Amino acid sequence: MAATSWEESVKSLKGVILDMCGVLYDAGEDGGSPIPGSVEAVKRLKASDLQLRFCTNETQATREVFVAKLQRMGFDISVCEVFSPAPAAVAVLKERGLRPHLLVYDGVVPEFDSVEKTNPNCVVIGDAAEKFSYQNLNDAFRVLIALEKPVLFSLGRGKYYKEDDGLKLDVGVYMKALEYACDVEAEVIGKPDPMFFQKVLDDMGIQSHQVGFKNKSSANTFI
Amino acid sequence: MAATSWEESVKSLKGVILDMCGVLYDAGEDGGSPIPGSVEAVKRLKASDLQLRFCTNETQATREVFVAKLQRMGFDISVCEVFSPAPAAVAVLKERGLRPHLLVYDGVVPEFDSVEKTNPNCVVIGDAAEKFSYQNLNDAFRVLIALEKPVLFSLGRGKYYKEDDGLKLDVGVYMKALEYACDVEAEVIGKPDPMFFQKVLDDMGIQSHQVGFKNKSSANTFI
Repeated sequence: MAATSWEESVKSLKGVILDMCGVLYDAGEDGGSPIPGSVEAVKRLKASDLQLRFCTNETQATREVFVAKLQRMGFDISVCEVFSPAPAAVAVLKERGLRPHLLVYDGVVPEFDSVEKTNPNCVVIGDAAEKFSYQNLNDAFRVLIALEKPVLFSLGRGKYYKEDDGLKLDVGVYMKALEYACDVEAEVIGKPDPMFFQKVLDDMGIQSHQVGFKNKSSANTFI
Repeated sequence: MAATSWEESVKSLKGVILDMCGVLYDAGEDGGSPIPGSVEAVKRLKASDLQLRFCTNETQATREVFVAKLQRMGFDISVCEVFSPAPAAVAVLKERGLRPHLLVYDGVVPEFDSVEKTNPNCVVIGDAAEKFSYQNLNDAFRVLIALEKPVLFSLGRGKYYKEDDGLKLDVGVYMKALEYACDVEAEVIGKPDPMFFQKVLDDMGIQSHQVGFKNKSSANTFI
């Protein structure tokens, strides 16, 4: 593709997916702060005839809580426009008739309310933070190893992130631990994996060549 | 090599290394029980002109505590004949002037008494069991990631083991987690890695072709 400006590219597109952290807001104390100009940019995109969706690997809060934070920052954004790993996982679980054993942060558990969880036949891990205890990891492992063919979903594959009190190991690290323990490859649901983006495209009803994606490390990326 | 009996092979050898769990004793409640005939077999080997050493991946107790258990079972065995990962790691740390941050079981910490541990420039993990907490893993990770070239030692690469209350994840699983987090390959000290066996050979002053090795899955294995 010949080099084109962001505005010119947008004209030929049917939809845009915006990453959130680093694009709309910067993480930090008190939930972070909006990046200058981003509230106005979202407004302009909404006024266009482009479809707009947002994606995040946030797995410590429900979308409701997360979106409320963005709204307080001034963003015109609603829950149904936001794609995070947990609801994408719920869709996959239901499609495949899977009942998860959850090892996720308490704040995101309600996203899984509609999923049958008795007699689990797979494991879903998210960034569980303090819940990544020795006991909880053993419990998740025992569910996996008791299955004829272990099925492990990981909500993202991040290695670590920074919080005010220092670096913290992210979900990808615990994914690797369980992969090794069970000789299994996890199915990753979240950026940057194709299965996750496909769910967003499905929702917009468009193809991958018709969408633009912007994250903090790309001025203008097309999937 | 032509097929030979265990006894015939032993005649041409200068030393024997015996694995312990599954060869001398079976694990179980109250520390396990001796395998019938094994106390007598150790006695016969000691009466021969072969050098004899024992090896184990035990990393939850010091050799003193572990050997005392075997002595109570009736084995003629002393601490200096037993090679476990912790003292092998101590030797490697001293050779290379490394100061470890330890993430190991409390019972094995005394093995590292002679090693300088301030201002750590590497991490050593063993089967830390309940000490594999989110906080302790983050702490070990922060030491590694702050190093220009992270150095990680793992006392074994086991995936899991069984205890009375169920399966437990072993050190190898947490090794994989930290490897992924830091883009580093751990140096494994313990069976079945060559560095570990080399320490045993060095102690006997013999070469690998001069030693026989017996573990629970091999009637007669030569390194």
